[in-house]
Amino acid sequence: MRVFVDGREGAGIDPADRGLNYGDGLFETLAVRDGRARFLGWHLERLSAGAAQLGIPLPARELLVDEVARAWPQGRGVVRIVVTRGVGGRGYRPPGYPRPLRVVSGWEWPAPDPACWTRGVRLRWCETRLGRNPRLAGIKHLNRLEQVLARAEWDDPEVAEGLMMDDGGRVICATQANLFIVAGGRLVTPAVDACGVAGVMRRAFRAWAEERGEPVVERAVAAGELQEAESLILTNALIGAWPACELDGRRLAVDARTADFNAWLERQ
Amino acid sequence: MRVFVDGREGAGIDPADRGLNYGDGLFETLAVRDGRARFLGWHLERLSAGAAQLGIPLPARELLVDEVARAWPQGRGVVRIVVTRGVGGRGYRPPGYPRPLRVVSGWEWPAPDPACWTRGVRLRWCETRLGRNPRLAGIKHLNRLEQVLARAEWDDPEVAEGLMMDDGGRVICATQANLFIVAGGRLVTPAVDACGVAGVMRRAFRAWAEERGEPVVERAVAAGELQEAESLILTNALIGAWPACELDGRRLAVDARTADFNAWLERQ
Repeated sequence: MRVFVDGREGAGIDPADRGLNYGDGLFETLAVRDGRARFLGWHLERLSAGAAQLGIPLPARELLVDEVARAWPQGRGVVRIVVTRGVGGRGYRPPGYPRPLRVVSGWEWPAPDPACWTRGVRLRWCETRLGRNPRLAGIKHLNRLEQVLARAEWDDPEVAEGLMMDDGGRVICATQANLFIVAGGRLVTPAVDACGVAGVMRRAFRAWAEERGEPVVERAVAAGELQEAESLILTNALIGAWPACELDGRRLAVDARTADFNAWLERQ
Repeated sequence: MRVFVDGREGAGIDPADRGLNYGDGLFETLAVRDGRARFLGWHLERLSAGAAQLGIPLPARELLVDEVARAWPQGRGVVRIVVTRGVGGRGYRPPGYPRPLRVVSGWEWPAPDPACWTRGVRLRWCETRLGRNPRLAGIKHLNRLEQVLARAEWDDPEVAEGLMMDDGGRVICATQANLFIVAGGRLVTPAVDACGVAGVMRRAFRAWAEERGEPVVERAVAAGELQEAESLILTNALIGAWPACELDGRRLAVDARTADFNAWLERQ
């Protein structure tokens, strides 16, 4: 792993950083293919939207672009960007003139089983739910304990992901992926206006589908609707799209759209 | 500020620490009086409850007790303990055998205006609400963006604190304090079983009141009830108890209990 902390390789983080103390910051996870960070512009756009929502000044774009390239300069890998509000005093009150911290790190490609893309993945329901807060919804902030607890619910390596509901029983996402539901041949994706993350690959999948003349309906989805669905599709920045083959024992059809989308993605 | 990172003074934090990346950890803020951390046992008890809830192994008690004493060895100050799940790979899944990180830091006493304890403090309502999640309620975890956003809502130094509601419109707490409501001469405190923190000073105030034969009712509190209340009292580990003199312009009576409690607290 290669890490740049405010541009300095191998530096540590100040223990008074608000990212550590309050999760007061944002992150992005990018897939690198042939040394090029995929959808870099969209990732930086979401980071920028999150920074505006939290009131964190964003580091210069050129710095981030440069460090992303240096963190994983060639081949296939993963780059993570973290931006926090930086060092602040004790107490929640944000400093009047924050000096944001940026951490850009490069990681090995995790190399999931290729069958995930073709045969599909097994899913389960998580008991841990997502609290609803419109002020934090959609953005990729650093308060991720709900996802951590949800992901800790199972050990079975045969189960790739867990689906999460919000406090009110609506389906929102998987622990590390967005969700598309195929019902009556139509594509639906849960709204992320009260919780959940508006994923970059969710955006890409949706744009791809709409380009093909298939509108995607974004709305509240009740858990019961998944019992009626023909297929489920997971998307995230690293995997692209995975079809689900099973949800807690119920078989699901592998939707042909995923293969088409992933083939398109390879050409991006 | 004096900081011990896993016992080493002045060390930095690993950028891959899960505390930084996901807020995957806990903290405590302790008042030090005459070189002694007040209610240390209760703070460590809550830390331990939080660690059990999140599945984080707690560092040895002797290490924490020793570092608390070294972080602020004499006089009046503040000690902060942070415990995270430590370094973990990318992704939410907790490592099977986590090696927790501990950060113990000593800070100057913030020295609020003495009138806060006697004349009382002005309060406001915050617009930022608290998402409900029973799995994270009561404990003092590191996911504190809601409090950060709430505290960023006002600049007026004359307003000491802001009250927060949950997603459903129940009153829960102030941004950095618990709340007691005096209504019909009786003490009520909001339940913290879906969000909010079960404060150590909340525990102390409640134990003190009950010792005097005054039961405290813990229950869901509707925002409207605060319009009927005679008095409001804030508690936290540093301030003890502050009476409120005003909420968004409405005058409140300074409750005599706060002075009695703070006098008792001085003798602890």
